[in-house]
Amino acid sequence: MVDIQDIYDAHTRIRDYALWTPVMTSSTIDKMVNCQVFFKCENFQRVGAFKFRGAFNTVSQLTKEERERGVIAHSSGNHAQALALAASILGIKATIVMPKNSPMVKVNATRGYGAEVVFCENSTESRVQVANELIKEHNYVLIHPYNDERIVAGAGTAALELIEEAEELDYVFAPVGGGGLLSGTSIATKGLCPDASVIGVEPKNADDAFRSFRDGVIYPSVKPNTIADGLRTQLGDITFRIIREYVDSIVTVSEKEIVDAMRLLWERMKLVVEPSGAVSLAGLLKMNDKLNDRRVGVIISGGNIDLTGFFSKLL
Amino acid sequence: MVDIQDIYDAHTRIRDYALWTPVMTSSTIDKMVNCQVFFKCENFQRVGAFKFRGAFNTVSQLTKEERERGVIAHSSGNHAQALALAASILGIKATIVMPKNSPMVKVNATRGYGAEVVFCENSTESRVQVANELIKEHNYVLIHPYNDERIVAGAGTAALELIEEAEELDYVFAPVGGGGLLSGTSIATKGLCPDASVIGVEPKNADDAFRSFRDGVIYPSVKPNTIADGLRTQLGDITFRIIREYVDSIVTVSEKEIVDAMRLLWERMKLVVEPSGAVSLAGLLKMNDKLNDRRVGVIISGGNIDLTGFFSKLL
Repeated sequence: MVDIQDIYDAHTRIRDYALWTPVMTSSTIDKMVNCQVFFKCENFQRVGAFKFRGAFNTVSQLTKEERERGVIAHSSGNHAQALALAASILGIKATIVMPKNSPMVKVNATRGYGAEVVFCENSTESRVQVANELIKEHNYVLIHPYNDERIVAGAGTAALELIEEAEELDYVFAPVGGGGLLSGTSIATKGLCPDASVIGVEPKNADDAFRSFRDGVIYPSVKPNTIADGLRTQLGDITFRIIREYVDSIVTVSEKEIVDAMRLLWERMKLVVEPSGAVSLAGLLKMNDKLNDRRVGVIISGGNIDLTGFFSKLL
Repeated sequence: MVDIQDIYDAHTRIRDYALWTPVMTSSTIDKMVNCQVFFKCENFQRVGAFKFRGAFNTVSQLTKEERERGVIAHSSGNHAQALALAASILGIKATIVMPKNSPMVKVNATRGYGAEVVFCENSTESRVQVANELIKEHNYVLIHPYNDERIVAGAGTAALELIEEAEELDYVFAPVGGGGLLSGTSIATKGLCPDASVIGVEPKNADDAFRSFRDGVIYPSVKPNTIADGLRTQLGDITFRIIREYVDSIVTVSEKEIVDAMRLLWERMKLVVEPSGAVSLAGLLKMNDKLNDRRVGVIISGGNIDLTGFFSKLL
């Protein structure tokens, strides 16, 4: 299993390429929740999300032979751009399979990082099938978005930096979708701050991780209907094992609670945060009455949100 | 006239109360403009704008007798909240005259900082008249939003911090409305980096400062029709004199250029910036071909924008 040393090693690998993102605070929010909150702002990370950490940590460990084969992922989210950029930095060919209804802004961003985009139908089955065909044909190396120990160790470097900067913390909140960020966060936190509690936060409308954690089996994520599009996936066996071992609890939040938290981050802290990135704050706000005067870390996972509609109406 | 020592003194006065806001960079924007850009993020300042610096510097210098009388301003913008907070910190009564069509979010924010809000009709005449009546009745001290040397010196502390952190700069860009920020910025810049050029940037649709600077007379701002609501005012005699002395040029930008710059800041830098706050970047983008490889400071003046419409449509 991944341990704290793996996270230190990942940090050494990525530190010249990923950004050490700022830890920000807000006296307004501190007053609201009556504790001291340290926001780790991964919306400022390269490609706009923590995903770059795991992608770079993974790709940089490929063998020479694997690098020559090239990498592939099927993703319409932040993993696509993260892998594209990581591969580009290391001079490796990247192919991303994306549903043909993906927003052009995401397609262009992925291409902008130098990856080849191959379109598929708008279903998970088609994504997997098209990726498998390409792997068979070209022998590409598949990079999973979360169920990979290298991805987990890379994701954990965000909490490592948070704790190095904020020092002692009593709680750390992170969102949970596939569990890469939460599992990495839990290992880093328990390794550096053994007494801190690690809380995963999940949308109520996609609560498979909450139920999996409670019942000890991985449930599939069936028709998740949440604005937090980064958190619709289910746990993998690797992330689930770590989460069962190190995470203290998983709480769920409503869609309204997610949007309210997001609004606080935009209006009060002037941070552009995507819905998935605000979920951890929503969890903190929910547990507010238990956190008096504590030192709390909150991981803001990303800031990629389509603002076309907003800006097209401004003039 | 205000000099660099006044800005140092202002900085000493405000530094335990105002935030030393972060200087941020973006490799994406650096590549776009082919120079090194240092953004001074006053959207992270208290009350969400640089205005707090000047307001606090001014109020903290009032005599005991003036403090007892209380302060007043007529403003629907960031100066209202800045003065309210500065007065509240110093235990001084503040009264703000606001048009009765002001957004409730601004009224509530101003009240939240402990000020009394008095409504007037929706015209400049009514604002001035109601304020004058209140001054006559209660002997309040009027705090002008920009045409005051203490406000100018306070505003200049943002550039002081920018240059202390970014060190040598070749250009500094700041927006110009009433000229408080631009005049303070120009004094700080010429005091610390005498070879740097100071560029004021103004909306084309409110180009009174551009024309005043060109012709050497203060023109009124007549029916300015710009999204940059913080830049609709005209220069004052104090700010005009400083700008003529220290500013190298004033450039104008279109409404589309303002929105494009704002969109870059939101999408690429994940910063919530108000239209007035993006105007300085719009000016930089416009002068882009002249700035090859230079070190450029850009003051992001504020981040207060009404997001009610955006968030009400999210769910």
